[in-house]
Amino acid sequence: MFDIQEIRSQFSILNQQVNGKPLVYLDNAATSQKPNSVLEVWNQYYKKINANVHRGIHTLSQLATVEMELSRKKIQNFINAEHDFEVIFTKGTTEGINLISYILTQKLQKDDEIIISYLEHHSNIVPWQLLCERTGAKLRVIPIDQDGILQLDYLDEFLNEKTKVVSVNHVSNALGIVNPIEEIIAKTRQNSDAYIVIDGAQSAPHFKIDVQAMDCDFFVFSGHKMYAPMGTGILYGKQRLLEDLPPFHGGGEMIATCSFDGTTYAGLPFKYEAGTPNVGGNIALGAAVDFIERLGHEHIQNHENALLNYAQKQLLEIEGLKIYGEKANRTGVVSFNLEGIGISSDVGMILDKMGIAVRTGHHCTQPIMSFFNIAGTVRASFAVYNTFSEIDALVEGVRKAQKMLS
Amino acid sequence: MFDIQEIRSQFSILNQQVNGKPLVYLDNAATSQKPNSVLEVWNQYYKKINANVHRGIHTLSQLATVEMELSRKKIQNFINAEHDFEVIFTKGTTEGINLISYILTQKLQKDDEIIISYLEHHSNIVPWQLLCERTGAKLRVIPIDQDGILQLDYLDEFLNEKTKVVSVNHVSNALGIVNPIEEIIAKTRQNSDAYIVIDGAQSAPHFKIDVQAMDCDFFVFSGHKMYAPMGTGILYGKQRLLEDLPPFHGGGEMIATCSFDGTTYAGLPFKYEAGTPNVGGNIALGAAVDFIERLGHEHIQNHENALLNYAQKQLLEIEGLKIYGEKANRTGVVSFNLEGIGISSDVGMILDKMGIAVRTGHHCTQPIMSFFNIAGTVRASFAVYNTFSEIDALVEGVRKAQKMLS
Repeated sequence: MFDIQEIRSQFSILNQQVNGKPLVYLDNAATSQKPNSVLEVWNQYYKKINANVHRGIHTLSQLATVEMELSRKKIQNFINAEHDFEVIFTKGTTEGINLISYILTQKLQKDDEIIISYLEHHSNIVPWQLLCERTGAKLRVIPIDQDGILQLDYLDEFLNEKTKVVSVNHVSNALGIVNPIEEIIAKTRQNSDAYIVIDGAQSAPHFKIDVQAMDCDFFVFSGHKMYAPMGTGILYGKQRLLEDLPPFHGGGEMIATCSFDGTTYAGLPFKYEAGTPNVGGNIALGAAVDFIERLGHEHIQNHENALLNYAQKQLLEIEGLKIYGEKANRTGVVSFNLEGIGISSDVGMILDKMGIAVRTGHHCTQPIMSFFNIAGTVRASFAVYNTFSEIDALVEGVRKAQKMLS
Repeated sequence: MFDIQEIRSQFSILNQQVNGKPLVYLDNAATSQKPNSVLEVWNQYYKKINANVHRGIHTLSQLATVEMELSRKKIQNFINAEHDFEVIFTKGTTEGINLISYILTQKLQKDDEIIISYLEHHSNIVPWQLLCERTGAKLRVIPIDQDGILQLDYLDEFLNEKTKVVSVNHVSNALGIVNPIEEIIAKTRQNSDAYIVIDGAQSAPHFKIDVQAMDCDFFVFSGHKMYAPMGTGILYGKQRLLEDLPPFHGGGEMIATCSFDGTTYAGLPFKYEAGTPNVGGNIALGAAVDFIERLGHEHIQNHENALLNYAQKQLLEIEGLKIYGEKANRTGVVSFNLEGIGISSDVGMILDKMGIAVRTGHHCTQPIMSFFNIAGTVRASFAVYNTFSEIDALVEGVRKAQKMLS
């Protein structure tokens, strides 16, 4: 039974007024709110068993270790990884992609090629630009059409024996477009030996993820966009690759033996988890997985898609409102501008006065903004706790903003 | 007024039984417990203002940004940095040192030299070994004497125009030895142009830190060892150096402009803070600073030193008990073995049955263990909430363990 009021009651933060109006939180693609169950797991951790993990034999350390490893198994199941040690705890998607780009350094040489797309977040652009600087490799970018849809003919053209990495997002954060990653992965496998990296920051909160069915090499996502605390995230990598590639950070936990004559590295997952992990956060990430699975992926997706369709229909009735990626397959995000109103933040500020939180600006995707020749968009993004009446409030707010600004 | 019972009442976790005995938590060098005020700040963040920072114009985002930047200023003050933008949020000491070691890559070439000491934690060894692998530089290690004291004559000998980095810890995690970093820094400045990195993981929880008086280039520490949640930490770096050096992670927040033709980077501190920060954790770190400053550095240090002296005196009355670094200037840690009992974890397990949490093993400092030709030690480490009667319990426990194991 999918009871939206019951779900909302689990999020204390939603039950407040902002600027004298009930908070309408539509900035979920930036970060989601956290249910009480997740906060409670974090609190109980610090009130009962906080200790450093793996290296201690005392009771608290053992309890903390058991709980964190249980969380790893929950996440393994959540993304259907073959092994729990393929699940590496990170602090978020950005760290995950940077980690991959660093450990691949030795695998690339001058004139090798890295393929990304025009729809990427800066976190899936800049790490590869830095890798190109380190190695002399070249970046090739799959273009989009006026609907924001990837032009996969270019992928066919780009792929060759020099292609060493293909890294694309599953869902665009700026536009909400669901990319055809099955097709991208299939084409890449057929025409190259490239490492395939999927940025799942905007898909893991919305879809059931199956990394084995997907057959990607790496899949990264953030905890904080899927109801877990900030400072948490996951890097999934295939065992064979993680075993073959060098370590990233050096430090405690990641060594087997350390001496000044030479150091040997620990097995997975510890090889990539140097230093004290965010134990409380990682356990809370497991609780966020529990929260999602209790609701059920299908119910979440149906509700969020219904919200998106409702929002899109209502918004398009506003004259002069353009939705970017309108015709594309999308999830969780509607990104738009009003004709004649060049500065999206003006709209955002008026909405804020009505208690409505949306994001405005370039959404860390300046290339998309350049493509559409705009400075930014107004982006409303949805989570499982949003309601149809919140969409009504958004639409009413946008109409008011239009009146005030024209 | 320093009221130990009042302080203890702020830590719910301490008020419990482990294995039927009152918990005696003496594993603070691994991670400290967190006062309710810190947990409460974290909770209030998620129940009232959670949002992504800097990039949003809506009210929650602005409130979250203000709170996180206020925390940065608290930390600036805590370490007496000249500017708040010299304070970079990380996930912990290990990330801080690795970050520095990566951004220095282009500054080193073959046969350059990096000086560390025998007393380092693996997190201040392995990142430099990896940097040596990348650049062909060589590691030189300041030796210790039988008391664990650094032999600074060797530093004089090592320093030359090829020395590019000197990285030492302020306080040894394994032995608690306070290193003469003032002298190390002075010698280094006099005889080289090396970057000076201080690992403050074990000093920031105990001392007043003054990075300007110290005149180090970088100072790194962890939040979780100083009463803040895990997944938090600080990299301090001098403005001039952070501005000169390249970025580490690419992603959102750290760019000024991003295009496929080339990307420009944001100013400090954002250049080094790619991706969504751990906003709740970073704000809670500010609350941990408040906690420490309310108690007062002097009071904390006096109490912890009294605990250490008391523990050392009592423990040395046990026949066959050897304290490593006994004669050195130490803080917060007593590290020992019992004659004839080769496996420190045997002692640790018996103590655990009595509710006493200590760490055993190599403490991520295998070189120190090799130097003393031991597999590990029993390490008791103190925080402000520990009591003299807890030391009595420890000493009684060690006596029992000795009886049981001989």
